[in-house]
Amino acid sequence: MNPKQLVGEKATEYIKDGMIVGLGTGSTAVYAIQKIGQLVKDGLKIQAVPTSKATEQLARELNIPLLDIDQVRSIDLAIDGADEFDPQKNLIKGGGGALLREKIVASISKEFICIADLSKSSPVLGSYPLPVEVTPFASELTAYLLSKLGCTPVLRTVNGTPFITDNQNYIIDCKFEKIEDPATLTIKLNQIPGVVENGLFANMATRVICNTPDGEIQVIE
Amino acid sequence: MNPKQLVGEKATEYIKDGMIVGLGTGSTAVYAIQKIGQLVKDGLKIQAVPTSKATEQLARELNIPLLDIDQVRSIDLAIDGADEFDPQKNLIKGGGGALLREKIVASISKEFICIADLSKSSPVLGSYPLPVEVTPFASELTAYLLSKLGCTPVLRTVNGTPFITDNQNYIIDCKFEKIEDPATLTIKLNQIPGVVENGLFANMATRVICNTPDGEIQVIE
Repeated sequence: MNPKQLVGEKATEYIKDGMIVGLGTGSTAVYAIQKIGQLVKDGLKIQAVPTSKATEQLARELNIPLLDIDQVRSIDLAIDGADEFDPQKNLIKGGGGALLREKIVASISKEFICIADLSKSSPVLGSYPLPVEVTPFASELTAYLLSKLGCTPVLRTVNGTPFITDNQNYIIDCKFEKIEDPATLTIKLNQIPGVVENGLFANMATRVICNTPDGEIQVIE
Repeated sequence: MNPKQLVGEKATEYIKDGMIVGLGTGSTAVYAIQKIGQLVKDGLKIQAVPTSKATEQLARELNIPLLDIDQVRSIDLAIDGADEFDPQKNLIKGGGGALLREKIVASISKEFICIADLSKSSPVLGSYPLPVEVTPFASELTAYLLSKLGCTPVLRTVNGTPFITDNQNYIIDCKFEKIEDPATLTIKLNQIPGVVENGLFANMATRVICNTPDGEIQVIE
């Protein structure tokens, strides 16, 4: 079993009957969702909230009962991937551009399990450029203000035009040398008026499930 | 002269040749902009950044030279109104729905002069419902999360449909009893993922120009 499938399926063991479950986005989350579909087929009774249009479509194909985000006030358990994680379970997310919806789901989840293969592990965050969702209005000024926080900002593009999020915003990928204090940085980022949300998930994950070099599973509590 | 005209025109006395000037939005700002138009006609050399489409149009009609927000990195002086202000020069803004652009301009202004008639003065902020710009996605959940900060949130509507900002977002008007600590509240508001920006301008105004009950001008430094 490849590492992504290993950790994705492991996370589903925490799901119990009656739960509202947040479904993440990305290649690792897909394995968790497919396993959940199988469990539902076998009788598991849950309702799920997807974090992207792609995940919503996959869940529908698998007949996983879905709730709209505006129908819920809290989520029992969310399972999602990450682009990078540190030993304190701080995450960088948003490589796929769904960071806002993922953060909304994570912020109301009692338990948030991050699933990631070992290549995403890092002693200090910063290897992966931090995705920041910004309003198209004043985006060049916002990039300048981001650079003053100590990063190199690059507007994400697709075929030469700006990448557009599900919320009609832009993404600026911010390369920091090292993110020593994620909790403080996320506040500073959100205080910049043109910033809608950022991909730093500080103190949000309650568990990280990761593979070991020899193909075992490790759970960081 | 009515109080709005009195304070609006007074603020223009701080403008000097060569400045980049932020132009606010609303009924009081209009008086300042009209006076600036007259000064430009008389030879004042400035460039201006508007905070809304309405202000941009007015400035064009008055032949005030304009810069796009993405062409500037800092503004010398911004002049804008407020819906409420306290003795520490904290403001509530956004009654007109332009709070994001106004906050972007204010955040890069070396000097930010708030112009307001005496009816906007309050010992503690909270009389005016605080406008919060939110993503349409998950807006009901976001309203619930706002209520947990101690306010009564109401989605702003026009003829029964949601009011849409220049950035294609919604406004939720949040009625707090009293806003005792604006600087802390603005951080908490911006940490809610669905919040794009909020109308609390804490520690941003450098001067408030207001009328007195007997028709004089007072400048709060």
